[in-house]
Amino acid sequence: MDDRRKGKLTLVGLGLHDEKDISVRGLEEIRLADVVFAEQYTSALREGALAEIERACGKSVQLLDREELEEGARVVEAAEERRVALLVAGDPMTATTHVDLRLRAAGRSIDTAVIHAPSVLTAVPGLLGLQHYKLGRVTTLPFKREGFAPTSPYEAIRDNMNRGLHSVVLLDIDAAAGRFMTANEGLELLLDMADRAGDDDGMTTRSLACVVARAGSPDCILSAGSIGEVMAMDFGPPLHTIVIPGKLHFMEEEALRTFAGLRARARSHL
Amino acid sequence: MDDRRKGKLTLVGLGLHDEKDISVRGLEEIRLADVVFAEQYTSALREGALAEIERACGKSVQLLDREELEEGARVVEAAEERRVALLVAGDPMTATTHVDLRLRAAGRSIDTAVIHAPSVLTAVPGLLGLQHYKLGRVTTLPFKREGFAPTSPYEAIRDNMNRGLHSVVLLDIDAAAGRFMTANEGLELLLDMADRAGDDDGMTTRSLACVVARAGSPDCILSAGSIGEVMAMDFGPPLHTIVIPGKLHFMEEEALRTFAGLRARARSHL
Repeated sequence: MDDRRKGKLTLVGLGLHDEKDISVRGLEEIRLADVVFAEQYTSALREGALAEIERACGKSVQLLDREELEEGARVVEAAEERRVALLVAGDPMTATTHVDLRLRAAGRSIDTAVIHAPSVLTAVPGLLGLQHYKLGRVTTLPFKREGFAPTSPYEAIRDNMNRGLHSVVLLDIDAAAGRFMTANEGLELLLDMADRAGDDDGMTTRSLACVVARAGSPDCILSAGSIGEVMAMDFGPPLHTIVIPGKLHFMEEEALRTFAGLRARARSHL
Repeated sequence: MDDRRKGKLTLVGLGLHDEKDISVRGLEEIRLADVVFAEQYTSALREGALAEIERACGKSVQLLDREELEEGARVVEAAEERRVALLVAGDPMTATTHVDLRLRAAGRSIDTAVIHAPSVLTAVPGLLGLQHYKLGRVTTLPFKREGFAPTSPYEAIRDNMNRGLHSVVLLDIDAAAGRFMTANEGLELLLDMADRAGDDDGMTTRSLACVVARAGSPDCILSAGSIGEVMAMDFGPPLHTIVIPGKLHFMEEEALRTFAGLRARARSHL
């Protein structure tokens, strides 16, 4: 074997929920890889999914800790002379850390590639029947931490709402602690932000909200109703995603009634 | 066999480019289906991809014409008592017609499901290294037709630009005519719209634009530069997508330089 092979780094998307969301191209790349890493900080599949992928591909997957992911040296060095696949839930490159890693590899003249996969950003509105050309800026709700209580996610939603656009609200993941924000926690955080923002006509428990739990899984749950109604429900295991709809087209409202159990007349403003 | 079986309609996403972008779950569903339809009006894979899927699954795929897709009866009737898969490029449910079809089936008490796949809406910004939380409203450029010359796509881009957000611009497909709008045609249409909108500081050939050709394919091309530079290039076969970047974070600009050949200092406003 030549002692100076050309390496490659491919970010392989795993999709939404389990080992069956990866594309045929993604599976092929894992089978061809010399080294397979995975990270579970930017998103995560259901428990056991990586083990299934290991079985399906006959490869062992090395899990990166947060520092190894962010600092990147372990992955980049491996890719200097070997074919490396980094497995990422969802569609890769949605997190800055993936762009950073790809840039570090390119900076060392390592070939890089991306293999795409389903993303919650299109799956969730699609499941709800909400039109993609009416999606505003996506926002993420971080866990509350001592001295860290931003209202910017609420302001992004309000900004979308003011132009009649829907807001997809991603929920924080604390992978190290195996902690995933529930839709109920997220809605409570949003109501708290609305209080602190102090709008006259801000978000209340009567505002319309949608929740999608386990998008892409066979036991996916869709729910639409007032925040009060939705917060009272138990959506089960992660991942959960919130959508705050803007102005609803009649077909969108019919979809929410048919697929997400919307009952009352939708109050599709904050 | 019982003469009154319960049917099902599953919209199966095919992803971005060819037969390898479908998920493992999607392939399984096609193999289980009694009837497999496909439509190529809302988007399309490269030529020959459907034939490859037929081969891989040992199923023949029936192509729907536009009327059958929009009017829906052929698909819904087939799903009354049989397991039907409707193959759709990209992630399903991004087009109103899919939501409409799913509602018609549900209205006949037919079970429906969606199997997700990679979408250009996340793949294209991801390939360019643009941050998803900075994506504004997506817009589509329709082919110019007699007495039909909207400026709304340009206005959507300007609206995103005013908030520093990136604009993904999808390009029209005339499947019946086998015609796909090129990025060059699209940029020309945008410049024409900018003229007619008559802004003081509107889009010109000096404005920054990105093009992604054949996202998800092995011969994908990424290009970033002034509209003048980009319009002079030949991006080859479809599909092409345009992105008009808003305010660039330094890492986004570095990604455009590294992966999309951005040379001059980016003028990331119209």
